[in-house]
Amino acid sequence: MTYCLGIVTRDGLVLASDRRTNAGLDQVNKVRKMHILERPGERVFTLLTAGSLSCTQSIVTLLQQDFEAGRGMAAADTFYEAVREVGRRVREVAELDREALERDNFTFNVSIIVGGQIRNQPHELYMVYPQGNPLRAAEECPFLQIGEVKYGRPILDRGVRFEKTTLTDAAKYALISIDSTMRSNLTVGPPIDMWVYHKDRLEMRQVRVFEEGDTELISIRQEWERHLRQAVQALPAIRFLEEADGND
Amino acid sequence: MTYCLGIVTRDGLVLASDRRTNAGLDQVNKVRKMHILERPGERVFTLLTAGSLSCTQSIVTLLQQDFEAGRGMAAADTFYEAVREVGRRVREVAELDREALERDNFTFNVSIIVGGQIRNQPHELYMVYPQGNPLRAAEECPFLQIGEVKYGRPILDRGVRFEKTTLTDAAKYALISIDSTMRSNLTVGPPIDMWVYHKDRLEMRQVRVFEEGDTELISIRQEWERHLRQAVQALPAIRFLEEADGND
Repeated sequence: MTYCLGIVTRDGLVLASDRRTNAGLDQVNKVRKMHILERPGERVFTLLTAGSLSCTQSIVTLLQQDFEAGRGMAAADTFYEAVREVGRRVREVAELDREALERDNFTFNVSIIVGGQIRNQPHELYMVYPQGNPLRAAEECPFLQIGEVKYGRPILDRGVRFEKTTLTDAAKYALISIDSTMRSNLTVGPPIDMWVYHKDRLEMRQVRVFEEGDTELISIRQEWERHLRQAVQALPAIRFLEEADGND
Repeated sequence: MTYCLGIVTRDGLVLASDRRTNAGLDQVNKVRKMHILERPGERVFTLLTAGSLSCTQSIVTLLQQDFEAGRGMAAADTFYEAVREVGRRVREVAELDREALERDNFTFNVSIIVGGQIRNQPHELYMVYPQGNPLRAAEECPFLQIGEVKYGRPILDRGVRFEKTTLTDAAKYALISIDSTMRSNLTVGPPIDMWVYHKDRLEMRQVRVFEEGDTELISIRQEWERHLRQAVQALPAIRFLEEADGND
């Protein structure tokens, strides 16, 4: 499995992903699922991929070849068009591989998160479905997730707001969301890749890898659990009708 | 869908469940999934049910008939035997209905949480699988969930500890866990039933229903979100190598 997420706020973007990949529980590897396409000062895209590694590799390879040759996402006039290029490559690889996969009961289940910016345009966050169609993150729900999405969702639902969440805090939310997922699902695991993008910078800059045993990751996890327990203790006790009848 | 959970601590039990039931998104009803079987001073059992309402109703009806007649869970010598009675009725209803369900591509997916105590024995928490076999909660993982379990799990993973969590706090964890699930999944919804059991009391006593719009539920939700955001702000900022080069 995999867990990737993107957060968009007024000030920029945070994208993060784990590196665990597995075919069953006994064939576990580490593979980077974050891919950066960049022309500093002009445009920057970060892609996060979930699903069959064989298929996502093909898609990213085709997009990178295009980008380096000045085609595809490098030539798109708008962010929307760039995301459509991703969808076009998703469909192309589906055309190549889907039938053979389905014959052996595998599904073509590739999902891709795309965040970034083209100069003089807003920063944007999208996901591309296995069918190649794009979905844009909205201010009302300023995050997108792919892969093992459920465990990491509650903290994002409760905390992240487009207008009010700073990028510094958005990075913490992303890390907590991934840490919650790792804790509850063995097939998501470190290293974690994180990219924080301040709008209008138009280059990657703030990239961070948290290895297994990263002291900052461990310290944030411990601090977070301590804060959570304190927060629960600080909540008022739930009242029951029968409370009045004794202290036992 | 449904979400039910049970927490066991040194001091007792907390069981909670939502009341939403649906066949698709357009046939939504409210049904109580918490069932109490009680002989005050002698034994008390609370059952939470998830899965096809038709099947769980049959199982609970059979168990209640037995209990009232002094058989089944009323006659079991140990909590383990009482839970085996639940499993026996699960298998009986599976025998009756499973084939017809599967012919039309429904699965027999009944799960049941059982918490309670028999006099002079420890308080216990189990779940019974659709196949009728029982699983006991352990001190290392002192909670059990059935139904839509993922969204509500992270807070339990982080917070609940058998030895250290008070029953007062366990009730808050249960409510937050259900509230997180309701927030992320429309097919789980109020009213919420909650039972808090102090060990050795051997009667139900603390039962509480949170209706839609319950002011205490809303206030706990708001307080919780405020605390979470403060906790995130209080965490140290994540450091990036490139931070040193400017304040932009």
